[in-house]
Amino acid sequence: MKQSKLFTKTRREAPADEVSKNAELLIRAGFIHKEMAGVYSYLPLGLRVIKKIENIIREEMNAIGATEMIMTALQKKEVWEKVGRWSDDMVDVWFKTKLKDGVELGLGFTHDEQLVNLLTEYISSYTDLPLYVYQIQTKFRNELRAKSGIMRGREFVMKDLYSFNRTQEDLDKFYEEVKKAYMNVFTRCGIGHRTYTTFASGGTFSQFSHEFQTVSEAGEDTIYVAEDKGIAINEEVLTDEVLKELGVEKKDLVLKKSVEVGNIFKQSTKYTDPFNLFYTDEEGQKKSIFMGGYGIGVTRLMGTVVEVLSDDKGIIWPESIAPFAVHLLALGDGEILQEASKIYESLQKSGVEVLFDDRAEVSAGEKFADADLLGMPYRAVVSARSIKEGGIELKKRTEEKGEIISLEELLKTLVP
Amino acid sequence: MKQSKLFTKTRREAPADEVSKNAELLIRAGFIHKEMAGVYSYLPLGLRVIKKIENIIREEMNAIGATEMIMTALQKKEVWEKVGRWSDDMVDVWFKTKLKDGVELGLGFTHDEQLVNLLTEYISSYTDLPLYVYQIQTKFRNELRAKSGIMRGREFVMKDLYSFNRTQEDLDKFYEEVKKAYMNVFTRCGIGHRTYTTFASGGTFSQFSHEFQTVSEAGEDTIYVAEDKGIAINEEVLTDEVLKELGVEKKDLVLKKSVEVGNIFKQSTKYTDPFNLFYTDEEGQKKSIFMGGYGIGVTRLMGTVVEVLSDDKGIIWPESIAPFAVHLLALGDGEILQEASKIYESLQKSGVEVLFDDRAEVSAGEKFADADLLGMPYRAVVSARSIKEGGIELKKRTEEKGEIISLEELLKTLVP
Repeated sequence: MKQSKLFTKTRREAPADEVSKNAELLIRAGFIHKEMAGVYSYLPLGLRVIKKIENIIREEMNAIGATEMIMTALQKKEVWEKVGRWSDDMVDVWFKTKLKDGVELGLGFTHDEQLVNLLTEYISSYTDLPLYVYQIQTKFRNELRAKSGIMRGREFVMKDLYSFNRTQEDLDKFYEEVKKAYMNVFTRCGIGHRTYTTFASGGTFSQFSHEFQTVSEAGEDTIYVAEDKGIAINEEVLTDEVLKELGVEKKDLVLKKSVEVGNIFKQSTKYTDPFNLFYTDEEGQKKSIFMGGYGIGVTRLMGTVVEVLSDDKGIIWPESIAPFAVHLLALGDGEILQEASKIYESLQKSGVEVLFDDRAEVSAGEKFADADLLGMPYRAVVSARSIKEGGIELKKRTEEKGEIISLEELLKTLVP
Repeated sequence: MKQSKLFTKTRREAPADEVSKNAELLIRAGFIHKEMAGVYSYLPLGLRVIKKIENIIREEMNAIGATEMIMTALQKKEVWEKVGRWSDDMVDVWFKTKLKDGVELGLGFTHDEQLVNLLTEYISSYTDLPLYVYQIQTKFRNELRAKSGIMRGREFVMKDLYSFNRTQEDLDKFYEEVKKAYMNVFTRCGIGHRTYTTFASGGTFSQFSHEFQTVSEAGEDTIYVAEDKGIAINEEVLTDEVLKELGVEKKDLVLKKSVEVGNIFKQSTKYTDPFNLFYTDEEGQKKSIFMGGYGIGVTRLMGTVVEVLSDDKGIIWPESIAPFAVHLLALGDGEILQEASKIYESLQKSGVEVLFDDRAEVSAGEKFADADLLGMPYRAVVSARSIKEGGIELKKRTEEKGEIISLEELLKTLVP
């Protein structure tokens, strides 16, 4: 894509009311636009990142046998009342609205109830199980405060997966598979090395749930990590009994601030029984279905990557989710621009995703600063000097110095 | 995909309160689930269709130089008040909600105002124009009645494109390009032959807008078509003056019921001026920006295809948007199922999207009926007879009789 065709521009300043680093950088770089606190539009560059994250998640979900569908934001009161979650006293993040005839509706902040209710029309036999379904969908949460940029949105994109098994043991087994798939997602998105599978509070049906906590000063959570044992514990469950159970000593724990990028939970029969979602086994016996729920905040994940991988010059996208693989800069017009245009076309023909800074009347300094702020993994510069020295100056965003290489070498490095 | 892994099942009956043919068929075939009137979840098969339609639209939008982004459902009151569209007296389909602090928000039924407001932060110079942006996004409309299935949703997917030009002439020119791109979309989705570019009421800034009306008994609109001249006119603008202007005589007009699958509109300076979205030209003069708005109802388009292309046995998907290219049926177990499984794997390896009815204990009759209801373009049957005759019985959904062909011939027909 030619940068001259990109309507977004970089800005020196984020909106005065924006206090989070992720939103500040993303707004300055033109990835997102703030509509109001916790509500952001995704501009062309931002949408490209979202789609790449979604596709990584999709691949990992499909790999464990899950099927994609999509449910609605508008949800019926009756469905939520069944397990007592309609009341604002029970759920403090409801957005509610009304049909013309006055009937109250909720805007989905999760879809456990709605899905279980839906499945009563389809699931009835042991032959229907196991079942794993997920969606990537927009959720609404009426947060009292929304000061963490896209890490805590009032409107945000989430992947939610739900599992349905015949037995607790089958659920336990699938839960472990999801655990691995989730770490794959975070690793592929470039934050695996900072993300811990963390013991968190369970519920009626299991002692623990697990959160995926990415270490970051911007995090709203506090975890304790026993690095040697590879164990992380959310402070909410940190008791002497738990430590004993996990075989961890208090002195080995290090406190860290972190962002919850995902969580997995065994709901067992909490929703299935009340909604009469049962199955009939081989002997004709009616049996309970064991459910699990698994979430990844897609937009939160994007915000977390920005928080933990940026430097004082701007964003540093991992190759897997960068909007473009390379940022090609033409430092000059005439012959230089012509040469850069040829390279742009070669890259495009070879299937390399390239953002081409072809803007006239923008100084080399501004172009360099923009490239650092936008954060593509590679920067390729075409200038009088680079042409004289026989090629293109290629530099990784994470490195200080580049080197002059030929077009052939450039293609070799970048062609996927 | 193996049908045994698909949690949806076909049903003989749609919900009693469902009166539209499109929703009735889609519910019975397991493509969608009705949450409430006008609000449908998209089950795995339905989501596959949506995504294919979206991709066709995306290709056509990108081809005319438009860039994709995505805006939010939650919208600020102030933005809508600027042009007087916040009041329920002016807009009768608002869903509204509130932040915790009592601040009122609207759920977007369109995004003209929000986008123009957003662009004031990015557009200021002639070098920023022209600009064409679009999104594929979920919209909310609080319809008093919602009896047309997914053709009139309270929550639905829409593609909305917006254009910004320096002059009315540039707008006029781009408008004609969109007209062609829209017909490409409808043709590629299989309803081009029944879809008319139709004169409809304009507004302050142009005499006409254009609607894309697909002839269907289920339509809520009435158009008059002069087939010979290739002209269609919405009844709302059918006056003697208009007929004279278009060179059409009343006697040549044929009345048809139709569905509005798309509409395009020249808003000119209606929104840009009030939001102070101006540009500075080469001479430093402040000038107005000329805007156009262009919509396609993605889910409505899906519903329309079902309305106009189905028969009494079920849905008939065009190849371009069918969830799977072929429905492979194994009529038997043992050797037959084994043979069918081999064919399934060959098809998958060759990149053919195939739904494999591998279900045990389902009769041949039921499998045939399901294949007709689900409506894949091709049905491939593996049975004792087909094996004996040397292959697979392939039949188009639109044809009565199939023929026995070899696996090689099957691949030749289906490999994309």
